[in-house]
Amino acid sequence: MAEAPERVIIDCDPGHDDMAAILLAAWHDRIRLEAITTVCGNASLANTTNNALRIVEAFGLDVPVHAGAVQPLLHRYDFPAAFHGPSGLDSAGADLPPATRAAQGQHAVDAIIERVEAHPGEITLVVIGPMTNAALVLAKRPDLAGKIKRLVFMGGSSTEGNVTPAAEFNIWADAEAARIVFRSGVKLVMFGLNVTHQTRLAQAAIDAVRAAQPGPNPAADIMQFYCGTYHAFAGADPRGAPLHDPCTIAYLIEPDIFAVEPRPGEVIVADCESYGQTLIDLRPQDRKHDTRTMNVDVAMSADTTRFTDLVTQALIWAAKRYATTSKTRTQGAA
Amino acid sequence: MAEAPERVIIDCDPGHDDMAAILLAAWHDRIRLEAITTVCGNASLANTTNNALRIVEAFGLDVPVHAGAVQPLLHRYDFPAAFHGPSGLDSAGADLPPATRAAQGQHAVDAIIERVEAHPGEITLVVIGPMTNAALVLAKRPDLAGKIKRLVFMGGSSTEGNVTPAAEFNIWADAEAARIVFRSGVKLVMFGLNVTHQTRLAQAAIDAVRAAQPGPNPAADIMQFYCGTYHAFAGADPRGAPLHDPCTIAYLIEPDIFAVEPRPGEVIVADCESYGQTLIDLRPQDRKHDTRTMNVDVAMSADTTRFTDLVTQALIWAAKRYATTSKTRTQGAA
Amino acid sequence: MAEAPERVIIDCDPGHDDMAAILLAAWHDRIRLEAITTVCGNASLANTTNNALRIVEAFGLDVPVHAGAVQPLLHRYDFPAAFHGPSGLDSAGADLPPATRAAQGQHAVDAIIERVEAHPGEITLVVIGPMTNAALVLAKRPDLAGKIKRLVFMGGSSTEGNVTPAAEFNIWADAEAARIVFRSGVKLVMFGLNVTHQTRLAQAAIDAVRAAQPGPNPAADIMQFYCGTYHAFAGADPRGAPLHDPCTIAYLIEPDIFAVEPRPGEVIVADCESYGQTLIDLRPQDRKHDTRTMNVDVAMSADTTRFTDLVTQALIWAAKRYATTSKTRTQGAA
Amino acid sequence: MAEAPERVIIDCDPGHDDMAAILLAAWHDRIRLEAITTVCGNASLANTTNNALRIVEAFGLDVPVHAGAVQPLLHRYDFPAAFHGPSGLDSAGADLPPATRAAQGQHAVDAIIERVEAHPGEITLVVIGPMTNAALVLAKRPDLAGKIKRLVFMGGSSTEGNVTPAAEFNIWADAEAARIVFRSGVKLVMFGLNVTHQTRLAQAAIDAVRAAQPGPNPAADIMQFYCGTYHAFAGADPRGAPLHDPCTIAYLIEPDIFAVEPRPGEVIVADCESYGQTLIDLRPQDRKHDTRTMNVDVAMSADTTRFTDLVTQALIWAAKRYATTSKTRTQGAA
Repeated sequence: MAEAPERVIIDCDPGHDDMAAILLAAWHDRIRLEAITTVCGNASLANTTNNALRIVEAFGLDVPVHAGAVQPLLHRYDFPAAFHGPSGLDSAGADLPPATRAAQGQHAVDAIIERVEAHPGEITLVVIGPMTNAALVLAKRPDLAGKIKRLVFMGGSSTEGNVTPAAEFNIWADAEAARIVFRSGVKLVMFGLNVTHQTRLAQAAIDAVRAAQPGPNPAADIMQFYCGTYHAFAGADPRGAPLHDPCTIAYLIEPDIFAVEPRPGEVIVADCESYGQTLIDLRPQDRKHDTRTMNVDVAMSADTTRFTDLVTQALIWAAKRYATTSKTRTQGAA
Repeated sequence: MAEAPERVIIDCDPGHDDMAAILLAAWHDRIRLEAITTVCGNASLANTTNNALRIVEAFGLDVPVHAGAVQPLLHRYDFPAAFHGPSGLDSAGADLPPATRAAQGQHAVDAIIERVEAHPGEITLVVIGPMTNAALVLAKRPDLAGKIKRLVFMGGSSTEGNVTPAAEFNIWADAEAARIVFRSGVKLVMFGLNVTHQTRLAQAAIDAVRAAQPGPNPAADIMQFYCGTYHAFAGADPRGAPLHDPCTIAYLIEPDIFAVEPRPGEVIVADCESYGQTLIDLRPQDRKHDTRTMNVDVAMSADTTRFTDLVTQALIWAAKRYATTSKTRTQGAA
Repeated sequence: MAEAPERVIIDCDPGHDDMAAILLAAWHDRIRLEAITTVCGNASLANTTNNALRIVEAFGLDVPVHAGAVQPLLHRYDFPAAFHGPSGLDSAGADLPPATRAAQGQHAVDAIIERVEAHPGEITLVVIGPMTNAALVLAKRPDLAGKIKRLVFMGGSSTEGNVTPAAEFNIWADAEAARIVFRSGVKLVMFGLNVTHQTRLAQAAIDAVRAAQPGPNPAADIMQFYCGTYHAFAGADPRGAPLHDPCTIAYLIEPDIFAVEPRPGEVIVADCESYGQTLIDLRPQDRKHDTRTMNVDVAMSADTTRFTDLVTQALIWAAKRYATTSKTRTQGAA
Repeated sequence: MAEAPERVIIDCDPGHDDMAAILLAAWHDRIRLEAITTVCGNASLANTTNNALRIVEAFGLDVPVHAGAVQPLLHRYDFPAAFHGPSGLDSAGADLPPATRAAQGQHAVDAIIERVEAHPGEITLVVIGPMTNAALVLAKRPDLAGKIKRLVFMGGSSTEGNVTPAAEFNIWADAEAARIVFRSGVKLVMFGLNVTHQTRLAQAAIDAVRAAQPGPNPAADIMQFYCGTYHAFAGADPRGAPLHDPCTIAYLIEPDIFAVEPRPGEVIVADCESYGQTLIDLRPQDRKHDTRTMNVDVAMSADTTRFTDLVTQALIWAAKRYATTSKTRTQGAA
């Protein structure tokens, strides 16, 4: 008998790789995408919510979108427009059509709480933006740490950062929120830069997505923009650009793509050069005296080929679905 | 025409002086007590909520009680049982009867949000415990900073602290929450130790409360316990013990009891000896170049006699009301 | 039998009130001024050393000047030229003549160490600038904490700051150095803004200095500049300007001008709004449980009249001495 | 014509690998060991100084030993006796004989300053303990940053720490000192755990040292103790124990054993989980916009075979020299 699909909420700030993660989750039948919640991160909450709505409509996904935190708990920063464009989801060609529907009236935090309570122990919360929403859930209801199945996130690093030498953007954007989550007792699986930098979306993959669906193809064009800004910043790389956020979903689909280790982890909130660092304790175990709490399962390495295959298939599926959805929408409009 | 009474929510952690503040608000007709919300602070949330329920029942108040945050956002500490006793509301004689009703099902944070939205610009939020609930309200809904009439709080100090040289207990207990509130833009009125240490509840006042109502008199006995622990700690003082929390309510009733100045204020969250300090900028203004934001109205001095009179009257009212309520309850039970 | 004068080293960054402190020490026969050491503070080390040399020559003092630290241990800041002028010792009229001699070859740190070792238990180190030199002495030779008679300093505050809401300039300029000194075990006497703001140099005093010595009178003119910049910043004040640095010397001469209390004290070095604060524990003693170390004698109040009298007499002496010295110098040059 | 040997001062806290570093420097003719200075670190200053003196005498080295800082600037900690034994230089067999001579009277800080001034631009300062002495030199005389040829140190890490998840012992033991050095402008070459953990001293090497010199062989026995405690802590490892300190000297002898990259580096001093971290910026260069200062040359990888060969040869030389020196000493004593 087939295993029931996993109930997943994606908490995100689309965001190019957020889109890839959403499409991967929507495509694969091992995942039941319960809701998308949005947060201020790569762009303003208005933009990330709008982008989520556009993604849902353009690709014909049947998923409610709930807007969440307008700003981090305490940290303030400028949006990193250089990477995702001013909209947060700029394209190198065709854009997604404007959204025609609004987000749900219910706040993201309440939506998450309600669904976890409806299905205790069954919901996987995938956080691929700053952890503000997740922290508000766990601060308001610390008891839910034991009722969320697991919190799988893209964020942090066990090696170098990106936005600072020590810190990755998602965690740095709201380090206090991340610290609340890290200390909450919820089961954590971390996909940090140390592993996401091993993954790549090469030009060949984007070309395959484009070839699979002639005509307007925003799935391909949006990923093309993403690779372009990466190469403009970090220099041309024949391997392509790292694909951070979809790692979390690929892990839910095929866990053995990744090698994961339990480790002690902490988030630095002191106002210093390490602000926003996820400090993962990589020291060898002292078997006799070790009393450390291994509160994070840290992904350490990836089978890049299998990962890229999964993402490429999902994007091809999405490109075709966009064409079908688009036709329906145009006919509906006529 | 008489002014309409002010809509007030008291967010508290009773706590002896919390009880005095609640009774002062319940007694005076310029205040319409909309709700009591509770928070972890002087004692566990279970205890502070139970104490709030006992106060409401024992004195026959018609006010809903909503339980809020179980723990601070990030800080962890031991409850200061030396001052309020293990229950958080120990008595030197008669105890309040056990509560017979439970708190509302709705979380304190949602209760506050709902009432502020129902009466935008009309609700005064009085915070006399740690600021965890208030911070969760403002983190989830930053727009409410402009819809809360004002947030009047007991906490912090512009001079010395109590729990540490720099910090007062309420702010120290959840300094990150306090920083969220201080930075939220909500109109703030602060009653810190600098002014509450000027106020006193003398033995004569407690004696007057007892004399006004022979027989079981928990209002008097509970305040007696409070003065006792204070004197045990700080040494006997003929002036009596400082009454922190009721300052906030006295200010709503008779604002001119206090001299209040607008000042820039910040909460220290760095992990150092100043953690939890409310740093109030007391420097003289440089009229030419001053660009500081005066985000806190800070109470600087009090007319102690008028203040003590108000509190004593309220406690006498409460002592009598307890007797009446007690009789009704006993008859109802019969 | 007359008491032997006290051996004093003044570690300073002149600075207008530094000059007043030096002159007060030079004038009074209870003090034997062993050396002046200079430090980067109100102005660059080049300027503060040059100013010290000009003071020594202009007023005919027989005291060696040793230059010390060029910069704070870690902190970097812009010199506060608004208060002391670009030279660090600007005048409203006559300037001191240029120095004709250079500082000693020996570094201030070595000079202090050598003299303390030569007279163990006899040297009072008066620090009226940032504590960089003192910290280097005590970091290199922690054992000298027990051989310095006492370290009397102007710096910090038990109430509000000046350069920030929390911090006074001297301590803020090198808070790490101050922390080394506070933790060293050396006997400390602190004259912070809490007491120095009680002292005043009124216009009448400056007028008396000027009247006592017609003709060029840089002693009067330099103090006039100092009062002028203070009034320009803080507004005209009939009481005059606070005189910070000379408090330390007045205390050596007539200790009972000041009320001094032993207190626990710490310096904040965390990178936060409290950086550079001297956190003095002012809480009442819990006589039963108190285990705090009272590492600082903190001056709390001053007899302003006696203080101002002392300083005025010293400045009158200095004004006359300048005239005599000036004549000798001119004759010597002829 | 042969290149003149390099003038080297070793600032150390022996310490087992410190001994190996000293012997490597003493053995090789490309190095002229000018002085050994000691610091509180692996053990108390009394012990590290005594150990340095014992090493110098036992192996017949003609090098002055100067004692330096008794304690770190601000940090306080317990000595890590589990790794080096209570003496700081425990042996698994023969001990070094007691020292018969005392250290020089001149303080390490003064000794370093004097030698750098005597040979400006020629002295390589090798720091293989905490940076307290080096910081005091540079704080007292910031101008010497341009007169020290280079400061080559063992400390920190661009990856994981040892004493904490983030920090290596030498830097953590006095992070404020390290920050002073990192910001001083002195040319820095860093051998952190990221590279020293790649190096190993295998049992075969120790066996070779023992075989080369039958009879009492403290060089072999002391290194044996070091490997033993390492294996007891981290588990048996056929590769042997990492040899941290000698990397610095091996680099002076044969620089191309190591791959070194210029990088921006900073030391964390905030009181948080990252205290003592050397934060090395490993992010790829943004060629267009990069304005970072590359203030540290960071060793990234090592040719382990060549390194171990060098150390083994030096230890064999030392074992033989011990025997000769021992004989002379005994005869001298007779």
